[in-house]
Amino acid sequence: MKQNKYDDDDFFRLYKEMPRSQFGLEAAGEWHILKQLIPSLENKHVLDLGCGFGWHCQYALEQGASQVIGVDISQKMLEQAQSLVKDKRLTYKQQSIEEIDFPNECFDVIISSLAIHYVKDLKALVQKAMKMLTDGGVFVVSVEHPIFTALPNQDWYYNEDGEKLHWPVDRYQDEGVRETSFLTNNVIKYHRTLSTYINTLTAVGFVIKEIQESKPTLEAMEHDKEMKDEMRRPMFLLIKAIK
Amino acid sequence: MKQNKYDDDDFFRLYKEMPRSQFGLEAAGEWHILKQLIPSLENKHVLDLGCGFGWHCQYALEQGASQVIGVDISQKMLEQAQSLVKDKRLTYKQQSIEEIDFPNECFDVIISSLAIHYVKDLKALVQKAMKMLTDGGVFVVSVEHPIFTALPNQDWYYNEDGEKLHWPVDRYQDEGVRETSFLTNNVIKYHRTLSTYINTLTAVGFVIKEIQESKPTLEAMEHDKEMKDEMRRPMFLLIKAIK
Repeated sequence: MKQNKYDDDDFFRLYKEMPRSQFGLEAAGEWHILKQLIPSLENKHVLDLGCGFGWHCQYALEQGASQVIGVDISQKMLEQAQSLVKDKRLTYKQQSIEEIDFPNECFDVIISSLAIHYVKDLKALVQKAMKMLTDGGVFVVSVEHPIFTALPNQDWYYNEDGEKLHWPVDRYQDEGVRETSFLTNNVIKYHRTLSTYINTLTAVGFVIKEIQESKPTLEAMEHDKEMKDEMRRPMFLLIKAIK
Repeated sequence: MKQNKYDDDDFFRLYKEMPRSQFGLEAAGEWHILKQLIPSLENKHVLDLGCGFGWHCQYALEQGASQVIGVDISQKMLEQAQSLVKDKRLTYKQQSIEEIDFPNECFDVIISSLAIHYVKDLKALVQKAMKMLTDGGVFVVSVEHPIFTALPNQDWYYNEDGEKLHWPVDRYQDEGVRETSFLTNNVIKYHRTLSTYINTLTAVGFVIKEIQESKPTLEAMEHDKEMKDEMRRPMFLLIKAIK
């Protein structure tokens, strides 16, 4: 059974309170980077893996996509997504990312935002993405950065005065489950090395076009001094790969 | 003036004492990984950037390369290299990596082992490599890993008992000079993010074939317990890119 934390009442309540849940993409610190990796979506068939509240699906509609499918394991997430926007080009499907089964070459663009670090079998997913994409199709993925996921604690190392000394890295080559806290306890994520992410994509024939490591905008740092800490270590890894 | 630390007497004396200097590639902890990224060199024209004592040049000769050129800024390094092997297919050239100027499409394979983190202008070098390579040519590069170069101290974080608690990461997005210690003080290296390494290559048209992050062999870990710490964070980043 895949973990479906988003249908846990406590988790969902807290998730709904996050700025990105309330205000959408503009409130997501990495959106300014992810957006640049997404190609033109006009008249494109788009799949969003782990669509959550559907913000990226909405973006695809706004950009003129001809068909948009959002997949998510959580019923609560999809109910919220469906309440936010209705469009005949848009379909939501309740399914785990691992279970997707679409025809070959039926999408021009596959987006997955901060979902694949919950997926156990990366290789199987990447193979499916390769099959589902049209020639020249684009796979845009964001995940928690391997520097961020290496230790389950996923936190800074502090001194006695509670100041952030640095970000601790350990167990980097020890890939696999990390039972961590995000909003609530017992959230299962998978730590993978950077080379595993890249090589899993290139091994099935994807061409790595660009990678990015999240950092805040100047505006965000001026508005919120805490955001400067996001320059000290990357929280997210973003990859644009072409079939 | 490029830094030429290897012609500093103290530095050179200490460098000569390193296992990899005395015993060659098999004593270099990452060689088992780098080796797998190097394509067949039979009848190939090979350039080694920052060749040092020429171990990789020797390897290229052993693998049947038809022409091998090793470039290094250090006269002391090249004198040692020249004393180790003579072969009419092999030429050493005293030059900084930044200054290289070879004809277009004159190499099938360019290797650079642990040298490019000393180079200030990565983009200019990558552009040159692109021009110098034949179509389908291979660029194999190892550098100190961005996790390793982020902080100038380049050391573990220890507790009061001198135990290695973890590897500290900070200033990750702050690319540029790191004045650090390696054998002696005042060694100038350049910290770059992973995305800068990858995107600089893809921006000029290289296709990333594979990346690796150094880890020890099982044999090395059995032989030397300290080597297990190399699983805790990657020291080197290795990239295979195709023109």
